[in-house]
Amino acid sequence: TSRALSATTALRTSLPDLLKPSDTFVRRHIGPTEKDVAEMLKVVGSSSLDEFIDSVVPKGIRLQKKLTIGPALSESEMLAHLKEMAGKNKILRSHIGMGFYNTIVPPVILRNVLESPAWYTPYTPYQAEVSQGRLQSLLNFQTGVIELTGMEVANGSLLDEATAGGEAMTMCYSFANRKKSTFLVSDTCHPQTLSVMKTRASGFNINLKVVKASEITKQDLSDVCGAMIQYPDTHGHLGSYKELADHLHKSGSLCVVATDLLALCVAQPPGAWGADIVFGSAQRFGVPMGYGGPNAAFFATHQQYKRSMPGRIIGVSKDSNGKLALRMALQTREQHIRREKATSNICTAQALLANTAAFYMLHHGPDGLKRIAERTHAIAVLAAKGLGQIEGVSIVGNLFFDTVHVKLSSPVATKVLNTAVSKGINLRQVNEHEITIAFDETSTPEHAVDVVNLFGESLSSQKRVNIDQLTALVSQADLAFPQDIARTTPPLSHPIFSSIGCETDLLRYIYELQNKDLGLQTAMIPLGSCTMKLNATTEMIPITWPEFGQLHPFAPLDQAQGYAELFKNLEAQLREITGFEHVSLQPNSGAQGEYAGLMTIRNYHIANKQPNRTVCLIPHSAHGTNPASAVMCGFVVEPVECDEHGNIDTADLARKAEKHAANLGALMITYPSTHGVFEETVKELIQIVHSHGGLVYMDGANMNAQVGLCSPGNMGADVCHLNLHKTFCIPHGGGGPGMGPICVVPRLAPFLPSHPVIPVGDLTESAVSAAPWGSASILPIPYAYITMMGGEGLTYATKIAILNANYMATRLKSSYQVLYAGANGRVAHEFILDMRPFKAALQITESDVAKRLLDYSFHAPTMSWPVGGTLMFEPTESEPKSELDRLCDALIAIRAEIKQVEDGLIGRSNNVLKHAPHPLSVIVSDNWRRPYTREQAAFPVESLRTKKFWPTVSRLDDVYGDRNLVCSCPPMEAYKSS
Amino acid sequence: TSRALSATTALRTSLPDLLKPSDTFVRRHIGPTEKDVAEMLKVVGSSSLDEFIDSVVPKGIRLQKKLTIGPALSESEMLAHLKEMAGKNKILRSHIGMGFYNTIVPPVILRNVLESPAWYTPYTPYQAEVSQGRLQSLLNFQTGVIELTGMEVANGSLLDEATAGGEAMTMCYSFANRKKSTFLVSDTCHPQTLSVMKTRASGFNINLKVVKASEITKQDLSDVCGAMIQYPDTHGHLGSYKELADHLHKSGSLCVVATDLLALCVAQPPGAWGADIVFGSAQRFGVPMGYGGPNAAFFATHQQYKRSMPGRIIGVSKDSNGKLALRMALQTREQHIRREKATSNICTAQALLANTAAFYMLHHGPDGLKRIAERTHAIAVLAAKGLGQIEGVSIVGNLFFDTVHVKLSSPVATKVLNTAVSKGINLRQVNEHEITIAFDETSTPEHAVDVVNLFGESLSSQKRVNIDQLTALVSQADLAFPQDIARTTPPLSHPIFSSIGCETDLLRYIYELQNKDLGLQTAMIPLGSCTMKLNATTEMIPITWPEFGQLHPFAPLDQAQGYAELFKNLEAQLREITGFEHVSLQPNSGAQGEYAGLMTIRNYHIANKQPNRTVCLIPHSAHGTNPASAVMCGFVVEPVECDEHGNIDTADLARKAEKHAANLGALMITYPSTHGVFEETVKELIQIVHSHGGLVYMDGANMNAQVGLCSPGNMGADVCHLNLHKTFCIPHGGGGPGMGPICVVPRLAPFLPSHPVIPVGDLTESAVSAAPWGSASILPIPYAYITMMGGEGLTYATKIAILNANYMATRLKSSYQVLYAGANGRVAHEFILDMRPFKAALQITESDVAKRLLDYSFHAPTMSWPVGGTLMFEPTESEPKSELDRLCDALIAIRAEIKQVEDGLIGRSNNVLKHAPHPLSVIVSDNWRRPYTREQAAFPVESLRTKKFWPTVSRLDDVYGDRNLVCSCPPMEAYKSS
Ligand SMILES: Cc1ncc(COP(=O)(O)O)c(C=O)c1O
Ligand SMILES: Cc1ncc(COP(=O)(O)O)c(C=O)c1O
Ligand SMILES: O=C([O-])O
Repeated sequence: TSRALSATTALRTSLPDLLKPSDTFVRRHIGPTEKDVAEMLKVVGSSSLDEFIDSVVPKGIRLQKKLTIGPALSESEMLAHLKEMAGKNKILRSHIGMGFYNTIVPPVILRNVLESPAWYTPYTPYQAEVSQGRLQSLLNFQTGVIELTGMEVANGSLLDEATAGGEAMTMCYSFANRKKSTFLVSDTCHPQTLSVMKTRASGFNINLKVVKASEITKQDLSDVCGAMIQYPDTHGHLGSYKELADHLHKSGSLCVVATDLLALCVAQPPGAWGADIVFGSAQRFGVPMGYGGPNAAFFATHQQYKRSMPGRIIGVSKDSNGKLALRMALQTREQHIRREKATSNICTAQALLANTAAFYMLHHGPDGLKRIAERTHAIAVLAAKGLGQIEGVSIVGNLFFDTVHVKLSSPVATKVLNTAVSKGINLRQVNEHEITIAFDETSTPEHAVDVVNLFGESLSSQKRVNIDQLTALVSQADLAFPQDIARTTPPLSHPIFSSIGCETDLLRYIYELQNKDLGLQTAMIPLGSCTMKLNATTEMIPITWPEFGQLHPFAPLDQAQGYAELFKNLEAQLREITGFEHVSLQPNSGAQGEYAGLMTIRNYHIANKQPNRTVCLIPHSAHGTNPASAVMCGFVVEPVECDEHGNIDTADLARKAEKHAANLGALMITYPSTHGVFEETVKELIQIVHSHGGLVYMDGANMNAQVGLCSPGNMGADVCHLNLHKTFCIPHGGGGPGMGPICVVPRLAPFLPSHPVIPVGDLTESAVSAAPWGSASILPIPYAYITMMGGEGLTYATKIAILNANYMATRLKSSYQVLYAGANGRVAHEFILDMRPFKAALQITESDVAKRLLDYSFHAPTMSWPVGGTLMFEPTESEPKSELDRLCDALIAIRAEIKQVEDGLIGRSNNVLKHAPHPLSVIVSDNWRRPYTREQAAFPVESLRTKKFWPTVSRLDDVYGDRNLVCSCPPMEAYKSS
Repeated sequence: TSRALSATTALRTSLPDLLKPSDTFVRRHIGPTEKDVAEMLKVVGSSSLDEFIDSVVPKGIRLQKKLTIGPALSESEMLAHLKEMAGKNKILRSHIGMGFYNTIVPPVILRNVLESPAWYTPYTPYQAEVSQGRLQSLLNFQTGVIELTGMEVANGSLLDEATAGGEAMTMCYSFANRKKSTFLVSDTCHPQTLSVMKTRASGFNINLKVVKASEITKQDLSDVCGAMIQYPDTHGHLGSYKELADHLHKSGSLCVVATDLLALCVAQPPGAWGADIVFGSAQRFGVPMGYGGPNAAFFATHQQYKRSMPGRIIGVSKDSNGKLALRMALQTREQHIRREKATSNICTAQALLANTAAFYMLHHGPDGLKRIAERTHAIAVLAAKGLGQIEGVSIVGNLFFDTVHVKLSSPVATKVLNTAVSKGINLRQVNEHEITIAFDETSTPEHAVDVVNLFGESLSSQKRVNIDQLTALVSQADLAFPQDIARTTPPLSHPIFSSIGCETDLLRYIYELQNKDLGLQTAMIPLGSCTMKLNATTEMIPITWPEFGQLHPFAPLDQAQGYAELFKNLEAQLREITGFEHVSLQPNSGAQGEYAGLMTIRNYHIANKQPNRTVCLIPHSAHGTNPASAVMCGFVVEPVECDEHGNIDTADLARKAEKHAANLGALMITYPSTHGVFEETVKELIQIVHSHGGLVYMDGANMNAQVGLCSPGNMGADVCHLNLHKTFCIPHGGGGPGMGPICVVPRLAPFLPSHPVIPVGDLTESAVSAAPWGSASILPIPYAYITMMGGEGLTYATKIAILNANYMATRLKSSYQVLYAGANGRVAHEFILDMRPFKAALQITESDVAKRLLDYSFHAPTMSWPVGGTLMFEPTESEPKSELDRLCDALIAIRAEIKQVEDGLIGRSNNVLKHAPHPLSVIVSDNWRRPYTREQAAFPVESLRTKKFWPTVSRLDDVYGDRNLVCSCPPMEAYKSS
């Protein structure tokens, strides 16, 4: 195949063209070359790309002008541009704390996990047989969390500490069957946690009461589903809460604890004194602060509450050969299933960052972590001792871990903070009389000296201390915790945490795990609705620059000018792409975007004195997060039917809009539809809803079929979210991070999320994330992508994404039934193959075909969504034609394997599909007793002989795993013996 | 297993200890934990580590004081320290040229090749069956070189362009059977190439004559073995050399051409007009300048000269199943075999950088490369046009590719250069009247404008030009080359170069290849004499920082203050470690170090009026590079015998020293000996040589057994080289880069290598490398290693390296015969297992055992060196005990497999050893007809079932490959069909 860049010579090219940079990006991002495109157009029967696109995208919704984004920067130009921007961030030493701490990312983890496509490109481990590596790592994360918190079960991460607080609250509410609607929360939780919980409470109509921790026991608990404290609290204080927990339990309320993993290395695990739910941020376990995110929240509870626990849980099970195998457990709890009954909408989480934290735990082991905790505490003690000697300064409380709480005798906190900034140090001002100073892994005794001296200087005391003087103030007893606080058990007792000694060990373990997982570095991941496109290296490089990584989210804004410029530029691009006027970058996943967008609509109606507008129309075909998000915002979901072509049934919609006219709040639609079709009627649907006073929310998951061709704003919608981890190249990280910013029309702008610490909007108590701009540090990825593509490149990408899907659908339609198509028999950027006929006739299921694809070195497509018994494929524009052909060839070969069953040549229950996938242990086994040969199983097509990715276990036994839920590492012997 | 860091609590640890950083390095570098060490000491029968070391290292040579290096920095402290140092380098835009150009490292290659342990940790691909990935990549490199140069065979890289020039000269000399001793070289070759050739010529007594290219045909050619020109030459001029080549051929002389790969994308390949040897630097194909290196030199010639070609050649062959398979070809030409007859000593080359260049070629493909070349040329034309308009400036010549040669009417070049520097630009000053300006891939039209305007400004012409004015000066005809210069064939016609379209393609190809190769990220590589220790991530991170990468080696010294500090600090560390007083960082491999060290000795003798001291004593057991280097310096090698214990035969040495007393130049020894023994008599040997007027060269390959315990200087040697890519953590890169600095006693200091452009020593014409400090950009690696270990850590590492070897030898001695041991039955840091008894009795060879180890997921040890029929193991200190045990278990299991043959249970020619290794294609095959089962072949020990690295081909057929030498990529079908 020849190049996208066709042959040029100096004599044939114009000088200005010749002088363009040598590292332009569009041809690197797009899979098919110009020559491929020509061939593919022939196959789909179009004479040109534009004619083809005209046959797919309805005329009525097409944009009338080109995107004004550009000119595109080349890769090196982009890196230089971002480097300059990054340079505008000023990295002061942060003692701000509040849930965000400096940490040392061990370089071996930085480079081989965070920066490695083998770790950042895979999807959520739905296909367990090709995901055992990250499943093990997430299990390590859960095991560490369970041990540190002293709980029984943990999940594989939530989006951030603040939303985890919200999830804990709604879990208590749900566990009380929504019968007790009061939730108490201590006023010394982090302000951003309180704020997000307030937003969450409003949707559920939970009565959230902020009280002093010491007052909780004095409350009437009859309507209280749970109460929450922070340990250590936002000002650093540790306390004894056993009595509180007992008291709560007596009245049937749950005890929720926000905590800190590093503190738990030396402090008693909340599980030991009665906590029912324990959560917090794992950021300081090796994940840079990144101006707020991404980082992994952890969440742990007791065995008895496991089915109410939000998020994904990794569980231990076995495969069809009885071999130990991991997979996502209890999937039936997920919002896909619960829909309108959901209390949580979490889908994309923070797998990559949970893995980073897990490797950090392995790297340091129990002794190492304990030492880091003790050292951090010791430095805080040094500072406290020194500060305590300064006149006008007193230390509040004497039980703290890493944060010193200082009271000033006169109201000079601002002055002290200014002095600090002038010395390159950020402190936290609680009020004009109070300051806190947090220490962390990167702190040194000299930092304590600096802090003491800057207080001294600010308060005009002349005496400077040095390290020896400070040290002399500290006795061994000062370093010890009292009995009711001190942890007595080792922090991480599972042998896995002591199995890694040296860097060689860890490096080999990282590679051992990654080699079990199929990521984009190996093959296509054709998951429909997931848009697994190229995560280009140039997009990834800036995000681990310290200038983006080491900024505290609550640092003064004048220190974050680089980020400010990034947000401003990116917002402008997203406005241009979506056709909306305002953007919030706060939501840190697609589902969070839905939630934020619907809250915006909800608050708009309330402000308009129409609080009754609570009906939300949602098509049956919608993604499960849609109804879940709606419910969380206080909407009542009214499902809308689809017709046999996969389109929303306009008549049904009109009927229901009319029926609910007075109370109509919103319509949620996905465009192109989740069935992979450009609906001709979309504008009409929107008009119907508008005409009845409702607003329209567009789920941007399928934006990859729209960019540059049409837009939510242009179609008339009022809000949309964008999955920056789909359309805009943030890698999926094996299940997160993501970013789900929302774009809105002007009238909704006043209702966008704000933030309690850094106000970014007009509305108080509307925060949806812990950080003002969500996972800010990964925003260079979409910005780089959009800027290197330019408007023209982006539009071309959309066209090729649609062409790739139609090319495959065309090649496959004689072998399989392609479900749903638009006006001209075209699919959009994805398509559905119906497997139900095989099931009906031969008991061969969509799952059998999906698992057999693993044997052909592919990730399986989306299974049984949005239609049960089908497979949905989305190739994206980044897959080269050769890989599309390889997938078509595989599916055609599988069709021939099905035909063998059809023809009775092989049995219905004992065939290559039913036994798929075939790991090496099965293929190599000396006891091969199958009605097909090893080579037929392993090498059904020739190309696999020279290049094959091997599933590492046989098909998972899900039932067994759910019945016997184990979500921490089994004993080491279990691994060996299986 | 527990941690090296034993459990601490605040109450048990002293405060200062507790306050040490959390990321100390020694425990990351060292494999065995404290607990492991205790267990291992028991096995070797010692009560403490110190007692153990006393039993190994002879008392007489032990250092009396500790190394004064320290205190050790932690990982993050080290990175901060290096960042600060790097910041002292000023990166101006370089238009210096002279063989070093700016280049854009494609980020996908930067991160996934240059920065990936899968690519940088493997060894030279001696074990072809676990090295097919980098063999393919090196074959791609050769294929690209062959196509671009128009030659028939190419090698897999040489050390740099200048040494490649030396190699070309000696190859001509050798091809003429050393009968014609004159070599002509054009005076417009790069000065550093001329200088290195002069050094090389002196050793061989070649009469090197520097002449004008136009004068070559006028010379008497009867004694001329070859003549060399540069194309384009050092000032940028292209010329027509067909007549010259014809003329040389007529008189039986070879035509040697130094050239530039980017120029060859648009200029006629030298092979087309008669060149016999073509070489140059592949640096500008994606390898940063790095202040001089590392980068790969290429070298190509005709089929008929292949056996005289220096360096490693990758060849196409087949495996024992007839499947296409690659390997290093024509190994019998290597210096290991030739020894005293060698004309080249090259061993470690530049594989990692050759691979980078190969991926760069794939990334850009023929069209892309051509476009880059045309664009670079166009920008040079722009500049020339603009400069030509300035009064007082004229352009020399009109045939140039990327470099504009300017003549000034008045002697103001210095002034122009100063103006340039003030604008952040470096130019090359030829003399006070001449300047050259080189452009490259990173140049933009604006750079041409800048250059024109700075000349204008310097020469007080007021007029400034802008880009439009410049462009208007250029006609299409200006961009064309005349017929006899213009390339007419596409630059890279093999389909492999057009097979990569997008980044997805390239990323998958990189991973496809790397997954075939066994590197340290997968398993131990116990190659004796190679010291495959941890290449820690923290050591690797700084070397791809732009502050180290983007500096031109000939930039003014005041712009390289960061490097100056690095050199100063590292030299001090190496002095302390070796016990010598002076260091040269110029040699860029171990063999180059030998050469440089011996030249230093040779020049010392000459300066002392003892040019007759040309006898060099070298033990039989020495590495092949030793005699080869000696011969290249003009020494006559006198071999010295070893006794049955593997020690140098003192009596024989004394006899020969005496015999040659009048002419004794040097003794070369390796310590501990290549047999893996600490010889008790080393000081005595040194004294004998000194007493006869000879100097002693110590090969530092085994320095890993010395650091902190003993030292070459302390033993009385006069020179040693250090393989920084062994003892000091520079990764092997799959066959390079390396660094081989030499350390010397004061009297030798005046004779250390200098450099023609940047004088770094006293002696003119003594350069051994193209760059003054060799491969400067990888020096942060040893510096970081030494600084993070500190003296104590380094010494501990040495002790553990020795313990690891003795632990293994002890565990294995009941299964195998351990050859050679020191006084107390101890080996040093490596040991030899004798396989000859199996061969004699059962026809099972050392190779059978080595290949069988591949089936156990190990790299094979060193085979048949230094003793034929044996295997030499070196575990290093970085391997954890678990991996040592895994290797011992594997060897013991293999011994049991041998016993099966011994016992007659299985045949001598058809058994699991003879067929080893077993790739998947064989194991999975439906036609399994072996007297052992698949599982016995694939999973001889249980642990392999869950974790196994698979060889990708069966045993290589070396004879076939050498008989049918193909050293470029075969047709694509060949890959598919096999
Ligand atoms: C249509 C649709 N909506 C919403 C989501 C939820 O997005 P996220 O996983 O980022 O929360 C998805 C995720 O796959 C989706 O496909
Ligand atoms: C004993 C000895 N001397 C010299 C060398 C040559 O070093 P280099 O490969 O760096 O040229 C080696 C390489 O393995 C060696 O083992
Ligand atoms: O290359 C070596 O000789 O080790």
